[in-house]
Amino acid sequence: MDPLAITIQLPAWIHDELARHGDVFPTAESRMLLAIALSRRNVIERTGGPFGAAVFERESGSLVAPGVNVVVASRTSLAHAESTALMLAQQRLGTFDLGAEGLPAMELVASSQPCIQCYGNTWWSGVRGLVVGARAEDVEALTGFAEGPLPADWATLLESRPAPLRPIEVTRDLLRSEARAVLDFYRDSGGFIYNAGSA
Amino acid sequence: MDPLAITIQLPAWIHDELARHGDVFPTAESRMLLAIALSRRNVIERTGGPFGAAVFERESGSLVAPGVNVVVASRTSLAHAESTALMLAQQRLGTFDLGAEGLPAMELVASSQPCIQCYGNTWWSGVRGLVVGARAEDVEALTGFAEGPLPADWATLLESRPAPLRPIEVTRDLLRSEARAVLDFYRDSGGFIYNAGSA
Repeated sequence: MDPLAITIQLPAWIHDELARHGDVFPTAESRMLLAIALSRRNVIERTGGPFGAAVFERESGSLVAPGVNVVVASRTSLAHAESTALMLAQQRLGTFDLGAEGLPAMELVASSQPCIQCYGNTWWSGVRGLVVGARAEDVEALTGFAEGPLPADWATLLESRPAPLRPIEVTRDLLRSEARAVLDFYRDSGGFIYNAGSA
Repeated sequence: MDPLAITIQLPAWIHDELARHGDVFPTAESRMLLAIALSRRNVIERTGGPFGAAVFERESGSLVAPGVNVVVASRTSLAHAESTALMLAQQRLGTFDLGAEGLPAMELVASSQPCIQCYGNTWWSGVRGLVVGARAEDVEALTGFAEGPLPADWATLLESRPAPLRPIEVTRDLLRSEARAVLDFYRDSGGFIYNAGSA
């Protein structure tokens, strides 16, 4: 093992899950249903927390990269669903900037509202849109996972980023009850709740 | 290449740089001097932005992991110095939680103040201390890199995290002028300034 290499591996079942959905997701709902399906499958397979996400080309609906929470398995607190989707999308496209010239506009679709970590990671990712299912209050009430000190006006801040940064359009509550159902399922299945730094 | 693997590689010169410093860093200043040396070497080697960081055992001063900015080379907007140090430390220790029971208390030492991304990533990392050299205003004035929407009271928020999270003690302005000097050097050397999402 290279002592200067960081590796985050997403679970192999993602190939199977994606095969059930096809490659193109024309509607906002179809994209969110993929993020939610990833979150549910992550619980069923016991590969991580109840969170799924994906990066799509905004106009075409083409999937760029999926992501799930693999914090425990990858031994990496940064490996939340939104962050793994962003990193994988960038590495697949060969650029640190999903908003780079020559690329179509991208959006991040997440089964639950990003925490303070994924909020900051989204800020520099280059996506032009963020679509969210369950709310932070759903996550905290149903699972016990904490969200951290998100600014109260987090969505407005994304949508009104100062130039030369481009705005990131925010859509909330899309299929919220379907996304919440996975959080319920996780709680009822006795899923492991961790909040690093609270040991 | 595994299509579900994310990899971030730190530059090989880090081995050489660490060999100049030894393994134990008993004082706060010696730890910051390592972070600053990493930031300077990253500019000289043209392997990334002018930022260095490291995770140490707080009491012993033993180095756990170094980190530098490799955003461009690794094609990953998350690969800031603080975040690579945190991820590498966790993977070396085999835990997502640097505050896990049985581990000595850890601190993150960063040549410059964390941006919104590394702020959030620090929140869930499990470190008990954050030590900062240059200020956000130094970074923005000297290099043009942006810091994002950090809360005005970001340090207070870290130090007063709600239970069961543990407080993260913050030290600022340690060897600030030495840390600033690297930012100057980067600007004068014609370093590449990027802010993803502003293309």
